Amino acid sequence: LIRQEDTIVFALIERAQWARNVGVYTPGAVPLPPPPPGSPPPSLLEWLLRGTEAVHGAVRRYTSPDEAAFFPASLPDAVLPPLDYATSPLAACGDAVDLNREILDAYVSDIVPRIAAAGDDGNLGSAAVADVACLQALSKRVHYGKFVAEAKYRADAGAYRADAAARDAAAILARLTDAAVEDAVVARVRAKAAAFGADVGGSGDGPGRKVDPDAVAAVYREWVLPLTKEVQVRYLLARPGCD
Amino acid sequence: LIRQEDTIVFALIERAQWARNVGVYTPGAVPLPPPPPGSPPPSLLEWLLRGTEAVHGAVRRYTSPDEAAFFPASLPDAVLPPLDYATSPLAACGDAVDLNREILDAYVSDIVPRIAAAGDDGNLGSAAVADVACLQALSKRVHYGKFVAEAKYRADAGAYRADAAARDAAAILARLTDAAVEDAVVARVRAKAAAFGADVGGSGDGPGRKVDPDAVAAVYREWVLPLTKEVQVRYLLARPGCD
Repeated sequence: LIRQEDTIVFALIERAQWARNVGVYTPGAVPLPPPPPGSPPPSLLEWLLRGTEAVHGAVRRYTSPDEAAFFPASLPDAVLPPLDYATSPLAACGDAVDLNREILDAYVSDIVPRIAAAGDDGNLGSAAVADVACLQALSKRVHYGKFVAEAKYRADAGAYRADAAARDAAAILARLTDAAVEDAVVARVRAKAAAFGADVGGSGDGPGRKVDPDAVAAVYREWVLPLTKEVQVRYLLARPGCD
Repeated sequence: LIRQEDTIVFALIERAQWARNVGVYTPGAVPLPPPPPGSPPPSLLEWLLRGTEAVHGAVRRYTSPDEAAFFPASLPDAVLPPLDYATSPLAACGDAVDLNREILDAYVSDIVPRIAAAGDDGNLGSAAVADVACLQALSKRVHYGKFVAEAKYRADAGAYRADAAARDAAAILARLTDAAVEDAVVARVRAKAAAFGADVGGSGDGPGRKVDPDAVAAVYREWVLPLTKEVQVRYLLARPGCD
């Protein structure tokens, strides 16, 4: 999980070199190859994400228990036997938990405006490619919450079973929230954004740092950590069904 | 060019988290969807690079003068009008210079073994996705040499015309080599690899730095800079034909 932070910070820094470019997210704003008959026109981001997932899916990326596609319906038929992930520790009851819709919405509506400069710099394609990398990294991190939740369940199955039987999501959320740990994560992410976003060896007349460390910290505080906890809550509500 | 260094260093660090995984580069080592009839089986890297370029090409990435596909023959037919790059400063005579074959060979044979740990960790798909990002960043940086060469040509056209008329590649190479500048670039890249590869906020019991700064510096010294100069030499040999 800590190494995944570096990947996410790198991806956000790469996205932050381009302006917000709202046309990337607006269906119809960019001419695209015609969608299938009956489909609404996608945004450039949706088109690129779907296409990238189709390529990665053909080599079985999404048969891994720690990968979730944003557009599973668009994945190609499996022409290859699935890889053997017999060692996956996840219980089937919770494995279907999927917050990619929420991640995509938060990314477009909140995260991009937070880290990218306002306006349009014309680099829509570059921004969209960077978006795909961000979304894949964020999705992987958030859905890792399922592995964390399974470990917590095994450590205290009785308590989580009682919460789930009462459909008490708030109790589960309280049980797995540790404010001190979250503060430490946010502080570490801020330090990473400062270190990796620094203008190393720069001439001093450039734009300086590549991303605002407070913005990256806010992305973690306001979206990554809450979404990760939401994955855990949903997993733990479903998990006793597999006992 | 300096911002592109950061992108390349990030991409190399991301690749360095996985082992060398030679199966990524070995045709037939990984089961893949069947190639078109008559085509040899590709490596996983070739398959993924070709598929990614097909998706990016459909939204016209490779109509940009600063982008070159590794598999241009596999790009989809243009279903969209090309974007307007009327402001491209490149001369048509040199625009066709393409070192992607050399970049791909150097990457697989020299760069990956230099930055990745020996052996196989099973993460072939993750390694191949990271490879695609590295190759796209390296290709963009190396082919930027065409823009640098055009500027040099405009500043001293007479000298380059004489060199080109004599087919004197060595003279052109000598004219555009500045050892002090190259030393400064390599030193800056080493500093970036150290800063961005640091284990920020780590517990101290982890693996420490994410990449060897000397390895990244060597990638620049031995491959990126020579390949960039080779692009410039080839461009400048062809360039007077457009006068």
